[in-house]
Amino acid sequence: MAQSPITARGQDFAAWYQDVVLEGDMAEPAEIVKGCMVIKPNGYAVWELLQRALDDRFKATGHQNIYLPLLIPQSFLQKEAEHIEGFSPELAVVTIAGGKQLEEPYVIRPTSETIVGHFFAKWIQSWRDLPVLFNQWANVVRWELRTRMFLRTTEFLWQEGHTAHATHEEALEETLRMLDVYAEVAEDVMAMPVIKGLKTDSEKFAGALHSYSIEAMMQSGLALQAGTSHDLGQNFGKAFNVQFQSKAGQLEYVWQTSWGVSTRLIGGLIMSHSDDKGLVLPPRLAPVKSVIVPIYRKDEEKGPVLETAHRLAKEVGAKVDDREGHTPGAKFFHWERRGVPVVLELGPRDVASGKVVLKRRDTGTKEPIAQADLVTVLPAVLERMQTDLYNSAKQRLKSGTVIANSLEEVESILGEVTAEKGNGKFVMAHVKDDPVCDARIKEFKATIRCIPLVDEYDGPGKCIVTGEPVDRRVVIAKAY
Amino acid sequence: MAQSPITARGQDFAAWYQDVVLEGDMAEPAEIVKGCMVIKPNGYAVWELLQRALDDRFKATGHQNIYLPLLIPQSFLQKEAEHIEGFSPELAVVTIAGGKQLEEPYVIRPTSETIVGHFFAKWIQSWRDLPVLFNQWANVVRWELRTRMFLRTTEFLWQEGHTAHATHEEALEETLRMLDVYAEVAEDVMAMPVIKGLKTDSEKFAGALHSYSIEAMMQSGLALQAGTSHDLGQNFGKAFNVQFQSKAGQLEYVWQTSWGVSTRLIGGLIMSHSDDKGLVLPPRLAPVKSVIVPIYRKDEEKGPVLETAHRLAKEVGAKVDDREGHTPGAKFFHWERRGVPVVLELGPRDVASGKVVLKRRDTGTKEPIAQADLVTVLPAVLERMQTDLYNSAKQRLKSGTVIANSLEEVESILGEVTAEKGNGKFVMAHVKDDPVCDARIKEFKATIRCIPLVDEYDGPGKCIVTGEPVDRRVVIAKAY
Repeated sequence: MAQSPITARGQDFAAWYQDVVLEGDMAEPAEIVKGCMVIKPNGYAVWELLQRALDDRFKATGHQNIYLPLLIPQSFLQKEAEHIEGFSPELAVVTIAGGKQLEEPYVIRPTSETIVGHFFAKWIQSWRDLPVLFNQWANVVRWELRTRMFLRTTEFLWQEGHTAHATHEEALEETLRMLDVYAEVAEDVMAMPVIKGLKTDSEKFAGALHSYSIEAMMQSGLALQAGTSHDLGQNFGKAFNVQFQSKAGQLEYVWQTSWGVSTRLIGGLIMSHSDDKGLVLPPRLAPVKSVIVPIYRKDEEKGPVLETAHRLAKEVGAKVDDREGHTPGAKFFHWERRGVPVVLELGPRDVASGKVVLKRRDTGTKEPIAQADLVTVLPAVLERMQTDLYNSAKQRLKSGTVIANSLEEVESILGEVTAEKGNGKFVMAHVKDDPVCDARIKEFKATIRCIPLVDEYDGPGKCIVTGEPVDRRVVIAKAY
Repeated sequence: MAQSPITARGQDFAAWYQDVVLEGDMAEPAEIVKGCMVIKPNGYAVWELLQRALDDRFKATGHQNIYLPLLIPQSFLQKEAEHIEGFSPELAVVTIAGGKQLEEPYVIRPTSETIVGHFFAKWIQSWRDLPVLFNQWANVVRWELRTRMFLRTTEFLWQEGHTAHATHEEALEETLRMLDVYAEVAEDVMAMPVIKGLKTDSEKFAGALHSYSIEAMMQSGLALQAGTSHDLGQNFGKAFNVQFQSKAGQLEYVWQTSWGVSTRLIGGLIMSHSDDKGLVLPPRLAPVKSVIVPIYRKDEEKGPVLETAHRLAKEVGAKVDDREGHTPGAKFFHWERRGVPVVLELGPRDVASGKVVLKRRDTGTKEPIAQADLVTVLPAVLERMQTDLYNSAKQRLKSGTVIANSLEEVESILGEVTAEKGNGKFVMAHVKDDPVCDARIKEFKATIRCIPLVDEYDGPGKCIVTGEPVDRRVVIAKAY
């Protein structure tokens, strides 16, 4: 068995992350395409499970999937002033097509609000056409300077919801409903606790009235913005002239929302649960939930062991690793690094005694189980593992969150934090939603992650920057 | 009820197709992005069902999904001579990104053989690494001059399989296995009979040794190439230096395959089954299989009708169209145009007599069914409809296929065929696989669609162009 090349978290958290991604068959850098990655089989299989979990919930809340063009006329982006300001440094531009210079270049979509605006104007005439509840699964391109697999890549896969409503009240309801859907998937499926909150005005989406996000704490103590949901107000409606006749017969602009999560979630998943041995996947997102590794030395042992392995596999829905030419040790190592929740060891003595040894990926504990009980024990163990992973992430979030009552305290907590050291914290402090305050916090290379929707702390206080009264503490952290 | 704006097939087949696509909520042109379309909710839902049918079969045959970058360094395409010659007129090129002129432009993938070649060279070292069996679901861009929704669009959605093998025999086996998978999905899921065959040398994929396709006949009598599977030989292996150490210890180039189907299949589906009333979907690809339309005039009828409708819907998995403010007639019209296989009419008299009226979309026949029987009758009707649609398409293919024994005969059969008239035929003739012959057939604006794998005709004969002996008749047709 080869020596593990996975860097320990305590040694260099950023290097550890890279090792886990590579060794877990999740992704690898596509160095020949700036800032891009190849999503490898295990990574894509996790993405498919995540897509299913999300898409089922989108459909259950009344949304329909559509598909819009990848290319957007460059002029479209300029129609919403804040939007173009936010996205223009990141655009990839097609200037030549079919062998000719284009009269008007196209940009590769960095997000689709503008082309959605164009089509909403065609599709929406009357209050009867509302609400429009669409979602799109797509790739987008944003030319990023510093990239990290899954967390920030030039091209990424995502879903973007786009909805139009007759009233602001309805649009805001939708914005928060989808934020809840994201939080539910993060917590129940990914076993990753999140804080739901409002982004400050400085941090909101370019073109939105308000942006909401879910923020998760990684094992490094750094924050990951895991999903966003935007109350777009009438900004894009006005920019693209999306008007409808109201019940009262008035022409009004629609109220829009947009919301998205991306392959970045997989980075969050990895940094929430994995360990120094490699990838750990929560059972609900594990493409392979359990693998039986047959163990035998002598020829006469092979038959009975494999026979029992396949019988058990069929009973409990496990995979059998019956590859020839690999030692059991190499197989354990293989599945461990790929984050398979449960490995079942089956040797000649287990066959004789009617047992099988169950090993949990997260705790590393081994337990002999009667083969006859496996069909009930295995799902129970997987459920417990899902819950345990959530609880320990929740505990980490709790113990990694501290209170600060002055800028000095914030600086002393966050000043030395780096992605390599992985010594981050969430700092709860009273800070006003004012660009001046965001700028002050940024001096520590940290950001206000969000203003939590639910105040779990001590209510109102004085802003540590301006001294003005604010109604609750915000989350400050260094972030990916 | 509004007058139908759907052009009759007999009047203008091409206009009919466009109307069916639009009225069926399948797609609409995205006129602001040259040659692109928006896939609307009903179209995307069909695509999702098609994806599931294909993806399940890809996985069952041992393939894993991955995701490769959208952008490919321009120089990559030049590494395989035939490949760049085939694709260079169709490329969309990114020359500016992140506000700067790029040193080396990127092309948006028209297909991914070249970037696959690059990564296969990194991933494959030994015979132990083979076979590599990957698939990707992605968007691609090919700058097309003449476009038609689903059938040919600048951007389209597809899957592309990419595999590497130790021997040519294995690669060819894979090529034909995936052709069979495509034929199975076309016939069993889409109810669209196909002819499996070899493309002529002139018509093969740019860079392949041999290309195979499935060819379907549309109601217009024109051919649609519905899927292709390529035996790439060692061409890309050599271009990208994908070498492996064989069991015998020799360095050898891998043998590759690639295979793909796209959203074009949806165009084929529409042109196979739809009628002058609009879209007809085979049950296995219908996002909504059956809808109950409640009928009532008086207030006291509404309660019992709706109650029965919802009870029945729950029992049989149907949707209830209980929208207010729409007449039953408008509802029938709505679902008819969207291709829903079965509409169930339920009025007060049906409630009283314990019946429901079942209407089939394809035949238009109405039949009263005892409500208690619906749970068994409905699935049986859907199964029968699936079979009937296949059989009538098969019958059409048969009666639309004719034999020709001279170039004059081919010309007299195909000379006047147009996409508008929809008066196409498949012509079976003896033609040699020689660029000279392809060119001669192209003078009639027709092409050799394929050399069928199974000869259902009279075996060998003399080429109608060169007079040389050939071993079977080929399919000649005008095509989309």
